[in-house]
Amino acid sequence: MKIAVLGAGAMGCLYGAALAEKGNDVLFIDVSEKTIETINENGVTLETDEGKRTVQARACKAHETKEDFDLIILFTKTIHSRVALESIRHLLNKTVTVLTIQNGLGNKELVEEFVEEKQIILGMTGFPADLHGSANVSSHGKSYTGIIDACGAVSDNAVLVADEITKAGLNCKVTNEVFEYIWEKVCFNAAVNALCAATELTVGQVGEFGGRELAYKIAQEGIKAANLKGVDAKFEKVKEMLNHAFTAHYDHKPSMLQDVLCKRQTEIDSINGQIVKIAKELGSPAPINETVNALVLMKQNSYKKHD
Amino acid sequence: MKIAVLGAGAMGCLYGAALAEKGNDVLFIDVSEKTIETINENGVTLETDEGKRTVQARACKAHETKEDFDLIILFTKTIHSRVALESIRHLLNKTVTVLTIQNGLGNKELVEEFVEEKQIILGMTGFPADLHGSANVSSHGKSYTGIIDACGAVSDNAVLVADEITKAGLNCKVTNEVFEYIWEKVCFNAAVNALCAATELTVGQVGEFGGRELAYKIAQEGIKAANLKGVDAKFEKVKEMLNHAFTAHYDHKPSMLQDVLCKRQTEIDSINGQIVKIAKELGSPAPINETVNALVLMKQNSYKKHD
Repeated sequence: MKIAVLGAGAMGCLYGAALAEKGNDVLFIDVSEKTIETINENGVTLETDEGKRTVQARACKAHETKEDFDLIILFTKTIHSRVALESIRHLLNKTVTVLTIQNGLGNKELVEEFVEEKQIILGMTGFPADLHGSANVSSHGKSYTGIIDACGAVSDNAVLVADEITKAGLNCKVTNEVFEYIWEKVCFNAAVNALCAATELTVGQVGEFGGRELAYKIAQEGIKAANLKGVDAKFEKVKEMLNHAFTAHYDHKPSMLQDVLCKRQTEIDSINGQIVKIAKELGSPAPINETVNALVLMKQNSYKKHD
Repeated sequence: MKIAVLGAGAMGCLYGAALAEKGNDVLFIDVSEKTIETINENGVTLETDEGKRTVQARACKAHETKEDFDLIILFTKTIHSRVALESIRHLLNKTVTVLTIQNGLGNKELVEEFVEEKQIILGMTGFPADLHGSANVSSHGKSYTGIIDACGAVSDNAVLVADEITKAGLNCKVTNEVFEYIWEKVCFNAAVNALCAATELTVGQVGEFGGRELAYKIAQEGIKAANLKGVDAKFEKVKEMLNHAFTAHYDHKPSMLQDVLCKRQTEIDSINGQIVKIAKELGSPAPINETVNALVLMKQNSYKKHD
């Protein structure tokens, strides 16, 4: 399969390298000169439970390729999605499939501004990925990837894509549960990432210093919105994920906290911000998400000003 | 009048020195050796629109005095009220009047654990006060002090106390509007102090970087609780105070932010925490205050742990 990975960050490198390793023709498209140079010269360094190895691949900037792809996987941070998709508008023909496995809500709606709904596949991954410098990624433990056609159907194309991802070791199934997974992960991130970003505490500290109840309430507002939307996301599953994280990932600084600490823009708008927006549309207010969202936005607005 | 001022901070020094200057016998009771020594050796340095001068007064620790006072003015931070009152339990006879002009809600209820309601006067001050080292205080501009008997009546005693405060230049009237003033100030502080403490931005930055709407909503939750309690506090007045502060006090770091920056306990519990508690009792949820309260508590709990 001829695949472009848009965004060679931790997740992009993991999926791109794993797919390249199994014989797919993978091109990474990124904005970083250094990342592009590293990949073209040394390939991607991939460390999984199967060991550490280097996978050869190609990389370039968006305007440097005019190839036709079967599949484009969108793996930028959500705040960069629009700019990234605009940069590859010349690759978005009528037959290409765009797969987004990004965090947050609103990804489908954004991709739909560029290609038709029938060309879009949504996904959700449970695999972790840590980046150690340019094009050097590690991922350990077993998990799964869920994908589904954006319209909710199961096309032959989605099955084909799932097969390639599974062959690459990233355990992919086509399942309608993707929508539940996406919402449950959003609710988890809305609780943990936003509370860490707002307080500048680690995941475990949020749990230890009085944030558990607030985390549950943030998740509950999101689950309520999901359920009103007809998505059968379950609070008990998110609560379990939260309790697990408070203990097992005590020292973890979620990306949103790392962004705050580095005075970068965060993904808050596509997580808590989307919950607020969707909840409001459904007539179900989400005041706690709204408050945390506003606080983190205030912080990042002040950084922007000072940059 | 024989007056003890409990807590020789900025406000305590301002009121105590002004009252001593006009012939009242004022004793400062404090926990700081340095403050006590400074007052006994050099008096209190007071700078107002009338100029800078030194006012002689006495100071000691709580256990070092057994005198009878006509009036004890409680001017500690609310988080220290209980410990401070316990330390002067031997002075709290059946005839002494206790006046609290502290910020926040719940002050009356706390003092009532130590003396009867009829011995308590509540107050609210619009005067600013800045402390510059031990027993050195400045206060500029015209304002007023409002006081009222805790039961809401107007006693001869309250009028007497108001007269002394007015003579001292602190413009005091006995008025039922105290309850409105207290609530309006609490709503203002719940919005500004808590948002500054949560985001670590100055008052003006909160206004500039997207905090205005959130500030209004925090205040509205408080005003709603006040109104349900039968107190005629007005949102429009608080909104005006907020808009004024966002512009006129751009660089100001409210005490709650200073506490966070110095990793000290804040007054959040007697401001936003009380709004949440009272609103809940009245069946009117205050989720935005609840969220901001929880976030600031998380931060200060983490400091305590690390101290």
